[in-house]
Amino acid sequence: MKPLNVAIVGATGLVGEEFISILEERNFPINELYPFASENSLGETITYDHKEIDVIVLKEEEIRKRKIDLALFSIGAGLALEWAKLFTECGAVVVDNSSAFRMDPEIPLVVPEVNGHVLKESRSKIIANPNCSTIQLVPFLKLVDGLFGIEKVVVSTYQSVSGAGKKGIEELHNQVTSLFNGRSVKPEVFLQRIAFNLIPQIGPFFEDGYCEEEIKMINESRKILEKPELDIDVTTVRVPTFYSHAESVWIELKKSCDLAALRKKISESEEMVLMDNIEEMLYPTLVDSSGKDEVFVGRLRVNREGKKRLSAWVVADNVRKGAAYNAIRIAETIMGDMHE
Amino acid sequence: MKPLNVAIVGATGLVGEEFISILEERNFPINELYPFASENSLGETITYDHKEIDVIVLKEEEIRKRKIDLALFSIGAGLALEWAKLFTECGAVVVDNSSAFRMDPEIPLVVPEVNGHVLKESRSKIIANPNCSTIQLVPFLKLVDGLFGIEKVVVSTYQSVSGAGKKGIEELHNQVTSLFNGRSVKPEVFLQRIAFNLIPQIGPFFEDGYCEEEIKMINESRKILEKPELDIDVTTVRVPTFYSHAESVWIELKKSCDLAALRKKISESEEMVLMDNIEEMLYPTLVDSSGKDEVFVGRLRVNREGKKRLSAWVVADNVRKGAAYNAIRIAETIMGDMHE
Repeated sequence: MKPLNVAIVGATGLVGEEFISILEERNFPINELYPFASENSLGETITYDHKEIDVIVLKEEEIRKRKIDLALFSIGAGLALEWAKLFTECGAVVVDNSSAFRMDPEIPLVVPEVNGHVLKESRSKIIANPNCSTIQLVPFLKLVDGLFGIEKVVVSTYQSVSGAGKKGIEELHNQVTSLFNGRSVKPEVFLQRIAFNLIPQIGPFFEDGYCEEEIKMINESRKILEKPELDIDVTTVRVPTFYSHAESVWIELKKSCDLAALRKKISESEEMVLMDNIEEMLYPTLVDSSGKDEVFVGRLRVNREGKKRLSAWVVADNVRKGAAYNAIRIAETIMGDMHE
Repeated sequence: MKPLNVAIVGATGLVGEEFISILEERNFPINELYPFASENSLGETITYDHKEIDVIVLKEEEIRKRKIDLALFSIGAGLALEWAKLFTECGAVVVDNSSAFRMDPEIPLVVPEVNGHVLKESRSKIIANPNCSTIQLVPFLKLVDGLFGIEKVVVSTYQSVSGAGKKGIEELHNQVTSLFNGRSVKPEVFLQRIAFNLIPQIGPFFEDGYCEEEIKMINESRKILEKPELDIDVTTVRVPTFYSHAESVWIELKKSCDLAALRKKISESEEMVLMDNIEEMLYPTLVDSSGKDEVFVGRLRVNREGKKRLSAWVVADNVRKGAAYNAIRIAETIMGDMHE
């Protein structure tokens, strides 16, 4: 595979930095790396392959004068809508981490191990990376559906502050420090105090009482699993933890659940890690998944009363598996296909 | 109502201290207050009604030589089994906060606003106080069942460290301080690090993969709601917060949900507080419920696809509403009945 010119758009953000780490770790074939960021980051540098590279301000002429093959975007939906088209016009493939294009029927929304095939079938130059909470859920749902058929899904999430980027991490850190020093705290990033508190709202509310994160998880899961009628209900909650998201997942099945078969399938999956042994009190916590690229699954159990019921606890690093790693796996799949 | 001689058994613990605060706040008619505790607490005092009272070591002769009318127990299941009978033999009514007697068919398990009538019907001298997570759940389920009929319930909990008593609070506090000072932490009270982490296990595991807290919530809800066949599934999770528990509750209903009727009923309930207005981004967080005696309800919504689906977010102070307040309400109900 020919080395590529790769733009990181939003290079100084949390996901941007993770893009760079993962590209290095995976020896992604890079000719030139272009770290784009907003004017606020002018003068900053990023480090790639032991070299310091100056941040490039996101401006039309800076894009046009470079030959960019791949642009990894993490700049929010508004800016993505503003800039993605220009990158594609200049010849780049854009993998966008925002919600801007996810529900566009012309644009693939991909978790490679679940629906990677759509990358071959589409001619879109923009590929959407799903929401972090969706990315960790759908591989597990896909596997369960293949084994037993899914009738209904109910999810409650436990989402870390890094889902709101660096400023989310700072807010939890600062609030904890303030409270432990007897100072009062004022919420800025989150809607209420997050330190030692729980906020059952992520994103603005829709008229029907669901918040944006819940609707994202519902709609994106349906699109990725190619089940537009999937019966899924979600409650999303911000919790006072730094990294990784957890999900309490309850599933009604078409067939009786065979836990041994399910455990075997998870163990065999390259993208999942089974941590599920009650005798050893083994199940994934956030600590286990942080910095990792897999989805961690445990607390598997079948309801005593109904054998067609499955409960599970699903954990993943929201910045890596839930964002940067998945985007780069998308890029690898596309680039691999382009060179076939 | 004649003033009573009241024993607090486990007076130096978290719930024990809350018993004393609530008795004071409610001007509970007390003649003598006897604060019993283990030998470890010898020499300690408690403050009641501006008086310091020496802790009494829990010993047979100390019980026998006093005329105790009411004993409020919070000493764990093992000690409750050991001591409750002696108190009742000496003429006391025991309200026990442990799991020791909860599932005994001869012993009432009571949340007064839900099934207070069983106190009149039973002759038991021991009354069981339910698990904290159950106490906050059943008033809401009762109300929903009365309006629309409950078909199925799925709950995921978010439980604070105070559920493990003072030592749980200390562990979170110490771990946060250690981590913020770059020191490593060693779990002692909880099974894994709790600071900035989530532990999806509360209590030991049963063979079927459920943990004790989950089984408690399932069995106790069925007993209190007098619905032995209630279809309810639960996942319990310890989260790094100090006070109050939250529950993400999903219910399948027999009839279509009328949210306006539900909100009205909750507003009218003396034991519940409605905090549910998406325009004002109003819903309960732990901060709202801490130190309060009510169950706080918000995030009420009906699934777009199915009108017989209700989601809710239910929050309460686990030490007050979930333990001490409910026990004292039980005592008030019994004592009121005795004097009728």
